[in-house]
Amino acid sequence: MIMKTACLKFHCIDRPGIVAAISSFLFERNINIIHLEQHSEEGMYFNRIEWEDLDNWTNKNAFRADFEPIRKKFEGTIDIHFFKETQKLGLFVSNEPHTLLEILAKVEMEEFGNTEIPFIISNYQDDTIAKRHNIPFFYIPSKNNPNYEAQQIEVIQKFNPDFIGLARYMKILTEKFIDEANCPIVNIHHSFLPSFVGAKPYELAYERGVKCIGATSHFVIPALDEGPIIEQDITRVRSGYSADKMKQIGRDTEKRVFAYALKKVLEHKTIIHKNRTVIFE
Amino acid sequence: MIMKTACLKFHCIDRPGIVAAISSFLFERNINIIHLEQHSEEGMYFNRIEWEDLDNWTNKNAFRADFEPIRKKFEGTIDIHFFKETQKLGLFVSNEPHTLLEILAKVEMEEFGNTEIPFIISNYQDDTIAKRHNIPFFYIPSKNNPNYEAQQIEVIQKFNPDFIGLARYMKILTEKFIDEANCPIVNIHHSFLPSFVGAKPYELAYERGVKCIGATSHFVIPALDEGPIIEQDITRVRSGYSADKMKQIGRDTEKRVFAYALKKVLEHKTIIHKNRTVIFE
Amino acid sequence: MIMKTACLKFHCIDRPGIVAAISSFLFERNINIIHLEQHSEEGMYFNRIEWEDLDNWTNKNAFRADFEPIRKKFEGTIDIHFFKETQKLGLFVSNEPHTLLEILAKVEMEEFGNTEIPFIISNYQDDTIAKRHNIPFFYIPSKNNPNYEAQQIEVIQKFNPDFIGLARYMKILTEKFIDEANCPIVNIHHSFLPSFVGAKPYELAYERGVKCIGATSHFVIPALDEGPIIEQDITRVRSGYSADKMKQIGRDTEKRVFAYALKKVLEHKTIIHKNRTVIFE
Amino acid sequence: MIMKTACLKFHCIDRPGIVAAISSFLFERNINIIHLEQHSEEGMYFNRIEWEDLDNWTNKNAFRADFEPIRKKFEGTIDIHFFKETQKLGLFVSNEPHTLLEILAKVEMEEFGNTEIPFIISNYQDDTIAKRHNIPFFYIPSKNNPNYEAQQIEVIQKFNPDFIGLARYMKILTEKFIDEANCPIVNIHHSFLPSFVGAKPYELAYERGVKCIGATSHFVIPALDEGPIIEQDITRVRSGYSADKMKQIGRDTEKRVFAYALKKVLEHKTIIHKNRTVIFE
Repeated sequence: MIMKTACLKFHCIDRPGIVAAISSFLFERNINIIHLEQHSEEGMYFNRIEWEDLDNWTNKNAFRADFEPIRKKFEGTIDIHFFKETQKLGLFVSNEPHTLLEILAKVEMEEFGNTEIPFIISNYQDDTIAKRHNIPFFYIPSKNNPNYEAQQIEVIQKFNPDFIGLARYMKILTEKFIDEANCPIVNIHHSFLPSFVGAKPYELAYERGVKCIGATSHFVIPALDEGPIIEQDITRVRSGYSADKMKQIGRDTEKRVFAYALKKVLEHKTIIHKNRTVIFE
Repeated sequence: MIMKTACLKFHCIDRPGIVAAISSFLFERNINIIHLEQHSEEGMYFNRIEWEDLDNWTNKNAFRADFEPIRKKFEGTIDIHFFKETQKLGLFVSNEPHTLLEILAKVEMEEFGNTEIPFIISNYQDDTIAKRHNIPFFYIPSKNNPNYEAQQIEVIQKFNPDFIGLARYMKILTEKFIDEANCPIVNIHHSFLPSFVGAKPYELAYERGVKCIGATSHFVIPALDEGPIIEQDITRVRSGYSADKMKQIGRDTEKRVFAYALKKVLEHKTIIHKNRTVIFE
Repeated sequence: MIMKTACLKFHCIDRPGIVAAISSFLFERNINIIHLEQHSEEGMYFNRIEWEDLDNWTNKNAFRADFEPIRKKFEGTIDIHFFKETQKLGLFVSNEPHTLLEILAKVEMEEFGNTEIPFIISNYQDDTIAKRHNIPFFYIPSKNNPNYEAQQIEVIQKFNPDFIGLARYMKILTEKFIDEANCPIVNIHHSFLPSFVGAKPYELAYERGVKCIGATSHFVIPALDEGPIIEQDITRVRSGYSADKMKQIGRDTEKRVFAYALKKVLEHKTIIHKNRTVIFE
Repeated sequence: MIMKTACLKFHCIDRPGIVAAISSFLFERNINIIHLEQHSEEGMYFNRIEWEDLDNWTNKNAFRADFEPIRKKFEGTIDIHFFKETQKLGLFVSNEPHTLLEILAKVEMEEFGNTEIPFIISNYQDDTIAKRHNIPFFYIPSKNNPNYEAQQIEVIQKFNPDFIGLARYMKILTEKFIDEANCPIVNIHHSFLPSFVGAKPYELAYERGVKCIGATSHFVIPALDEGPIIEQDITRVRSGYSADKMKQIGRDTEKRVFAYALKKVLEHKTIIHKNRTVIFE
């Protein structure tokens, strides 16, 4: 059986006394800290604390009210999550399902904890995988369909996901869409950003003659491929590999990097600050 | 200019209130924490805190006395270090100097901070490298010299090193020697332990047909190659590599792993517990 | 569209003239070589040649007859494969499906080429995944069933697979079974062999305090975990990881290593010699 | 004792019969091939063959004359090298010596084979390392010295190196210099190209929030950081790493990548084609 836990993320301008204040707050409430991790960077303080959840607060708002004096004192930003609550991860896909299959495998293995996939939206018609896993599937073509973003937003508003994952969904999102989706959106880009922004990164990597190809998972912002990076990794390529071969072996990097990034997000181990992420271990 | 810092390592049986107590202690003394990292494992609590050293205590004993009530309350073990103090790393070598060259390069690049090499002891006669770097060199042959450990201990007692590094020193140390050396001894073993303990690990790796060769740096205990592991890493081997080729490409792994482990030790980022190490980032 | 190719593996005692003889043989038959790779090791010569398959021979026996003079001259061993022919990979599983899910994803993405899964044999009853993918499933319990190996062999003889993959199948195979299965059997072991042979490797790895955990895929021979290694890799562990956490993060290494090894086998890029494998790129 | 070998690199437009022709040529001259590796890419054929050097030809020109009929038939380009001949690697440095120390360590360990360092040119005055290793040192300041490239060329023409290595030499070379140097020039750039071309790559990497930092070794062409890439690799960075910390841990990647690239060049395992390199194993 997995222990129920809760976690608090907190960040503010760095100054002495923050960890003393927070740890004393928890100690006074008989909380048993399981993990505590903190980072300081450019005058900012970031931490994440995880503890055994003994239902000390009836809900998140009760916690927020209790913690408010400390938050106010340090003028900080908080995120509280109880892992007993199920999180919903909506997925967008196109016609290359390798990252989708990886995410579904992770959910099936319970490696994403208490997470469910409420819907899959695709701009391709094939619903084989969604059907196989009994996940609501919405085919919303983008070609000759000026309305497709509105139709996607309709699905999002119906299911109200906590996060959206773009599992090799190959369309650019508009600023309007990002606003209306109203939840963090995680993308997997098939290059080692900032190299090879945009379409056809493997072809560009081949042309440049790089010796490693990469993948980058990042939060989506309106500027293409410029959102805060969550995770990156590479795979070596050998002489004689064509762009197509790179594309094929790149899939494993993409799915590994995307799954890793989503796990960090679902475990509330990321904080965005100044278009960069702080990642907790 | 590098900031002067101090660090405290502390470990005890885990229970609520430890981080609150330590962080409050430091906050009350106007200490500005730069890094705080903690781990819990099998009912034990381990942490390491680093802060800007404003000469708050005149020496280590003054700190220990001040901190004693907390140490006593939690029945913990502490290690305090002020990085303004120079540390001495004595080196033992045989006839393969790649790890020695790496250590000297790290010292020269100031990557080991405030560290000096007080002596090199070798069971081979060649003193070229020691001379080049103006390091006292002691040729203590082990063949036909039943007294060699006593002679080594004499050198150690003269220079009083804080740590000893075995930079591919290919002799087994006796329990008596380890006792008398009276400081942590770090070895680099040329395999991915616990595979291929003892002599000729590359030959054994070749025979077994492994696809990666490794190196392991560990604290020395009387049992051969069984001390607490500090760091390990591997390099892939390709088909057609002979044991000799493995040996050659393995050198880069050895020097990288050994330098990494020594840096952790010199930065007081290791705690030994139950023949395992806790490593701080 | 993927080009149809054929490949020849050849090994013999090394001596001058082998590559000249084979490449001339192919040139005389207007064969266009796409890949040629060769290795020499301990007096042996190993090569693998892949060419565009223009149906130059009506079947494998026709090729063998044509090539026989060269094979005989060098007293070599050959393996010829036409990739237009479908290969059958039978799978054995227990109750941890992560490697199974990875293999099915690879088959679905066509990364294993012309491969099909004729059956899944499990010593656990759950057939969810097999059903979902329309793969014949055989529940053959091993507890209180002295006959289970015979029942497994029956399935094997019915479907006649080219290869068998043990996808975290947690039973030891007898020599009798290995003989009767009569095809190469590929296992994934959840440690970096030869460390931690047998059961509970993550627990042993935790106890020893290793800093990286690994996985090893190997051909099965009667001696437990001692067969020729095809592929190995590792993942770093951090301080504070329990054996259970290691087990969880180790899954990704296991599935990656197993899929890589099976791909090498299915692409006829392995030669076994002296309980080691030669692996072609 | 190391075996004396010779190697031939050959590339031409791909067509059937090349390997048959070359391997027959060598077989007829009783040559024992030790390594043969070939790649095909975009209609081109590249190979490298290494054999035991039994002084079959009195010099390179004798080989070239003997091989000319084959070269002509396939309209190929050849490079022949006898490893018994010493190669000279001239070095340029500035004020960060970590790659220089690595190269000197590799030369000392004989990992670069029959290679010597004829000179070190620096735009900084400190000659400690050069003196220590008895290598001719030339301090050629670039500030307020419009003539510095001419002075560098003078040194180059005096010592006539086979290759030049830019060991973190932080000046841009002019096209004129590259022409007059008249030998391959290998640079180490402290980023994962094409990301972060030019100055201050670690600062840019920090700003972008990348999760891995890299290094790239490439042949120098007039366009800055755009020459054919020989080798690349990365190191992961953790949250909380400053640009300075990235710079420090990046050094190990730089020295590893640079040494690897130089070894490939010195072993004649690179072919430049269309601003990309083919690398042999």
